[in-house]
Order: sequence, then structure tokens, then C-alpha cells
Amino acid sequence: MPPFDLPEGDPFGPHNLPYGVFSLPGASERTVGVRLGDQVLDAAAAARALGSPHAALLARPTLNALLAAGRTTWSEVRRSLTEAVTDPAHRATVEPFFHPLSAVTLHLPFEVADYVDFYSSEHHARNAGAIFRPDGGDSLLPNWKHLPIGYHGRAGTVVVSGTEIVRPSGQRKAPTDAAPVFGPSVRLDIEAEVGFVVGVPSAHGTSVALGDFREHVFGLTLLNDWSARDIQAWEYVPLGPFLAKSFATSVSAWITPLEALEDARVTPPERTHPLLPYLDDAATEPAGYDLRISVALNGHVVSEPPFSSMYWTAAQQLAHMTVNGASLRTGDLYGSGTVSGPHEHERGSLLELTWNGRDPLELPDGKRAFLEDGDVVTLSAWAPGPGGVRVGLGEVSGRIAAG
Amino acid sequence: MPPFDLPEGDPFGPHNLPYGVFSLPGASERTVGVRLGDQVLDAAAAARALGSPHAALLARPTLNALLAAGRTTWSEVRRSLTEAVTDPAHRATVEPFFHPLSAVTLHLPFEVADYVDFYSSEHHARNAGAIFRPDGGDSLLPNWKHLPIGYHGRAGTVVVSGTEIVRPSGQRKAPTDAAPVFGPSVRLDIEAEVGFVVGVPSAHGTSVALGDFREHVFGLTLLNDWSARDIQAWEYVPLGPFLAKSFATSVSAWITPLEALEDARVTPPERTHPLLPYLDDAATEPAGYDLRISVALNGHVVSEPPFSSMYWTAAQQLAHMTVNGASLRTGDLYGSGTVSGPHEHERGSLLELTWNGRDPLELPDGKRAFLEDGDVVTLSAWAPGPGGVRVGLGEVSGRIAAG
Repeated sequence: MPPFDLPEGDPFGPHNLPYGVFSLPGASERTVGVRLGDQVLDAAAAARALGSPHAALLARPTLNALLAAGRTTWSEVRRSLTEAVTDPAHRATVEPFFHPLSAVTLHLPFEVADYVDFYSSEHHARNAGAIFRPDGGDSLLPNWKHLPIGYHGRAGTVVVSGTEIVRPSGQRKAPTDAAPVFGPSVRLDIEAEVGFVVGVPSAHGTSVALGDFREHVFGLTLLNDWSARDIQAWEYVPLGPFLAKSFATSVSAWITPLEALEDARVTPPERTHPLLPYLDDAATEPAGYDLRISVALNGHVVSEPPFSSMYWTAAQQLAHMTVNGASLRTGDLYGSGTVSGPHEHERGSLLELTWNGRDPLELPDGKRAFLEDGDVVTLSAWAPGPGGVRVGLGEVSGRIAAG
Repeated sequence: MPPFDLPEGDPFGPHNLPYGVFSLPGASERTVGVRLGDQVLDAAAAARALGSPHAALLARPTLNALLAAGRTTWSEVRRSLTEAVTDPAHRATVEPFFHPLSAVTLHLPFEVADYVDFYSSEHHARNAGAIFRPDGGDSLLPNWKHLPIGYHGRAGTVVVSGTEIVRPSGQRKAPTDAAPVFGPSVRLDIEAEVGFVVGVPSAHGTSVALGDFREHVFGLTLLNDWSARDIQAWEYVPLGPFLAKSFATSVSAWITPLEALEDARVTPPERTHPLLPYLDDAATEPAGYDLRISVALNGHVVSEPPFSSMYWTAAQQLAHMTVNGASLRTGDLYGSGTVSGPHEHERGSLLELTWNGRDPLELPDGKRAFLEDGDVVTLSAWAPGPGGVRVGLGEVSGRIAAG
């Protein structure tokens, strides 16, 4: 068990240190951990042993207390944990608080307050438009370049990676059907996304400026917005997706703090339309992130969506979400929307990868238009870190169970 | 202070006993109260004094513990509180625990988990369809009679009656505008609704049958789904309303238990389309409620929407919301959608009452197409109770502040 002796370049090295919540076998108590290689450090125990003033913030069953503490505390905690796992003088003290990842249970790392999902990849929006409105002229709707389109999802069904996904049942109606039929979805899909986790709340009636993004958002996670396309097609007019999405949304067990991603910040794509001042990021620091996502279906990589191609940034999404005075709460989660790049192998949903089922994927275990029972979908990602080392994001995985 | 000597027929008599949360002047401690006439009974203090086993459930800053306790406990608590305020033998014991309504502060009575809003009045849906799709043929969309259309809203901005509503800012774009403009909404509206409060959770991956409605839902409240029509028109395609609604949703300080509304249960309107089995309520006990709502603008009644005219019942909404396996949590809130009856003076929004501003209301203090700063909107309602006595619902009121 050599946490201090990780191979050089391990994407979960001490430059990363994502936060999660774990419990030990046979124990019901949950506590905050940080990941180092294939180990979990009991963060509260280590902090206590080293006399850190923040130990109490970490001896909690969720990350919410840490999330609420704000950026100064986030930096202090991260600095002291980095020291704990890198300073040889601490080695003997903290080593007893490491546990192999394979020996612990990982839990949903934070209590989700409100969950919002955006729709901020231009390539995804154009693909979806072309598929669903083939005769609709410009595949992008008129509002798309003026504001980050979004909607609220169900916070209570956000689950941690590894949770089995029961195929949802619901109504569907093909245009040729006389009446809707009921049954398990036959067009179950994924959406590869990045989720942003709000730490610091905002007051009701105020808005959060673009430049305050990193004062409020603690970190990010991979997110799979499972989607039942047949249910969605029948229900979504005029109030948007509801049961097609609300059965489950998976997030990683690990929240990567934004501070670990400083070297991954990039300028978003060129803005082709003038933006209203509250969304105009021409003069702000770059709020795009260069995250290289990989989508695997039963172990086979089927797509590699580049997050750097997202038109709207998480800072713009936050500014938009609050511009009407809506308050933020600790634990608010917002998804980027499906990440799709400009190329065919960069599409973040089966809808796009198979062009609504027309061109099934050819996998070693058969063709796939949409997901079959027993299929396992795994999202993973990395970002450029300091000195060229990769920063690994915690994977998010789910297996489809018959509904 | 004669709580036992209420005038006969008081709509907040001992047959009603809605639950709320209050604090006393200068005190920060919140606790559960029940309303009797113009008084609040400190329910925990009374229960303790009478030796009730449920006192601890009531000595809480929200109703959530009571909500989670389930129907048997709900009945026991209600029975003992009814006894406490009607049995002359208890009078001396409980009288010290009454406080005048005017002397206490009322708080949001429960912690909202997920908030869903439906769209279940046929008259409202037809009016909205006719206004927004004047050339669209049938003003009802094809899916409307097959499922209760709904969407998720923002739980974090549900506020208690009396909370000032700051006019939201956002983007709007008239069809004739070349580009969107930003500013305070100029088409701020109300939606008169009834909200249902979930007590008993359900397991993820399971659904709640029509007949189990009253095992899960504790009670109901009036709800005002404030809506910025100009923001909504520009943002809502294709994912539904977002910022047009998320700035605020007001609920009453009082949750009326379903048990107080047994005499108000009615059969919903005739179903004109065959329903899939999970929604087919032909053979179930009636789940409609005869609630007579009143909408007042600056003290003038402008509409009287009848809740009995709602096409989809709260039981159907609950069955639909969970048919995909989505779990329920204690504190989930779902709105009925705007309540509009078949007649002009029964419409539950200014959008419909003024036909999108074309026919402004003539009020003593001027014309109103939509809400102006300083306007106060108050929803109130009553339902038939035992022996013809009315059951009053707690009002929900809000004043518009400049944004």
C-alpha cells in the first residue's frame, strides 16, 4: 500500500485529489475521502491526526459542509491535504488512513439541492435539430445562440456511479400509431455530460456575475443524463422533457475541485452572435475546460467527446440561471448538456452516434441502436494538468437492468 | 382569546386544523402549529401537556418529520389535536399554547425536496393553445388527453405567502425585434394552482399506483406559480419553461391535510379518451377535490377558478410522475397547473383573463394587462366540509417589488 510511491504521471496523483464519500465494509458511517491512485484517504482522520482546523468539516456523511465553506476554506483544505500526501514527514502519520478503493463503498458524494440540465453543445443541438426537424431549415433554433437553454431535472433521482439503472416504463406513440402504448422504453440512451457542483449559495433576488463563477462553484463531475427517447418524443411538447429523464441521472463518486483543473482552462469557441452584457465573456478569464471524455459501451470506446468544444461555459450557465434572481443553494448541480464535438466519433449520445437508430453501432457483442438490458455504459475523462501530467476525472458507470 | 368559542361555521374551525410552522416575536425557534380561527396553537406544547406520544414529531422547525410519519400517524396526530381543541376537559391545559395569528411569524412550512408543476386544466390548456397557436387547429396538443403533462421546477425558490416577489429580469424578443433585449419582465403573470405535498417516500425503481395516492400525499396548499410570459415565450423551445418560472413560487403558510377534505372529494370530469391502465381512474375512489378558488388583485376579486373542473387528478399526476420508476421523497411538492374553469371569470392567469393583454382588466385603481410593481395578488379558497361547514384553505399572497 504505497500511496506516496505512485508511478509518476498517475492521473490520480497528488495534483488531483478529488473528493468523495465512502464507508468501510460492515460500517454504516460515511465520511469524506480523497482519492490518491487506487487508494482512498480518510480525509477527516488524516486532518485530525495532523491537527488541521478543518477536520470537523470533513467528518461528515456528505461534502455539503465543505461545499458551503467557500473558496478560501476550499484552498486551505486542499493545501493541507496535498501536504499530507506529499510531505515525507507526514507519511507515517497518514498512512494508516489509506484504504484500497476496492475495499470501500463509495456513496453519492453530496446532497443534491436543485438539478438543472443545459443544452450547450452547438454540435449536439444541431444534430438533434437535424434528426427531429429534418425539414426545419436551420437546425439551430433562433434562441440558441443568445442564451444557454436549460431546464430543471429531478434532484431526487441523481445516483452515484455503479447504481443499476432500471429501464423506465412509460408512454410512447409513433406518428403512425393510433394511440399511445405503454411499456419499457425501447430507445434508452445516454447523454455524456459534465456536472458542476455549487458550493456557496446566493441570495434570492440577486444574480451571480460571470466573474464570480469560481466563488460559487466548487468542482465538477462526469454525468450521464440517461434518456428514454421514445418517452421524450411523446411527452415533451410543450413543457419539455419530464419522465424521459427523471428516472435516473448518474454522477461520479468523485468531485474534482476546480483548483485541480487550472491548467485545463481554455477559451470557448468563437461567439458568432453578439451577447447581452450578462453573458458576454469576451473580457473575462477563460471559463472553458479542456476535458477529454470517453464513452465506453460494454468496454468498447464508442465516442470521445471534447468538452472544450462547448459553446456555452459553466460560468455563463451560472450567470444565466441566476439572472432572474433565482437563488443558489449548496448542493445545486447543473449539467452541461450532452457533449458532442464536430466529428462523428465525438458525439455524446446514441441518438447522434446511430442517427436515431438508422446506423447502429457495430460492437463485438452485436449491433446497438439503443441500449439493451445488461449493457454497461462508462464515462471517463482526463484533463491536462501541471507539467503535462493528466488529471483523471472519476468515472461514471451504470448497468441497464430490465424494467 | 377564545379559541373554543369560535363562531359556528368558521372555516378554520376544529374540522379543519391545517398545519404550519411559526415563531414567536423575538424568538428564532420555529415549531409546528395548527390554525384555529385567527389563532395558532403551538402543537408540540399542547401535545406535550396532554401526554401525546407524538409531541417530538411536532417540536420541529418544519413539517417534514410529520410528513414522513405516514398515514396512521397523521390520523392519530389529527385525532388528538382535534380532541385538544374541542374537549372542554382540555381547555385549561391547552389555552396557554394559543397565540394570535397576528402576533406570530409564519414560515415556509416544509423543506421542499423536488418541485414538479403540471398543466392539468383542459380549459387552461385550450386557452393557452388558442392564444399561442392561433392557427394551430385544435388548441389542445395530441398528447394532452393521454397523460398529465408536467415538468420540474426550482425547489429552492418556493417561498411562503407574504414573501415579496422581485420582478425578474431576463431576455425577451418580440417576433418583430431583430435581437433579444434584456430587462425586467413586462408581462409578469400569476398562475392560480393547488400544490400537493408528498409525505411518504417511494423506492427508486418502483411506481405508485392510483389507489395509493392518499398513502403518500399528506395534504395540499394554494400555490401561485408566478410566470414571466415574455421571458417564457423566448426561452421555452425546445426544453420548456426555465427562468420564466424559477424566480419564485409562492405557497400558503398552511398545509391542509387531505383528511380535512373528505367531504370535498368529487369525481373528475368525464374522460373523453380511453386511458392507459396506470391512469384509468374509472374504478377508483374519486380523487377530484371541490375547491372554490378566488383570485384577488389589490383586493378586487378578478377570478374564481373551480378546482373540480381539473381534467387530471392529483392521484393521476402522482401515478404518472412515478410510472418510470422515479422515487418520491418526503417534501416533494407538485402543482396542479393553472386552474381555469369553463367560464371567462374562472380563468386562473392574467394571460387568459386579458387574452394575452388584448382585453385589460378594469380595476378601481386602473387597467391591468399584466402585473405592475406594488400589485398584491392573493389566492384564497374554501371547500365543502362536514355538515355544510366550509373548510378554509390558507391564503397565498405576494406583492410585486420593482426588479
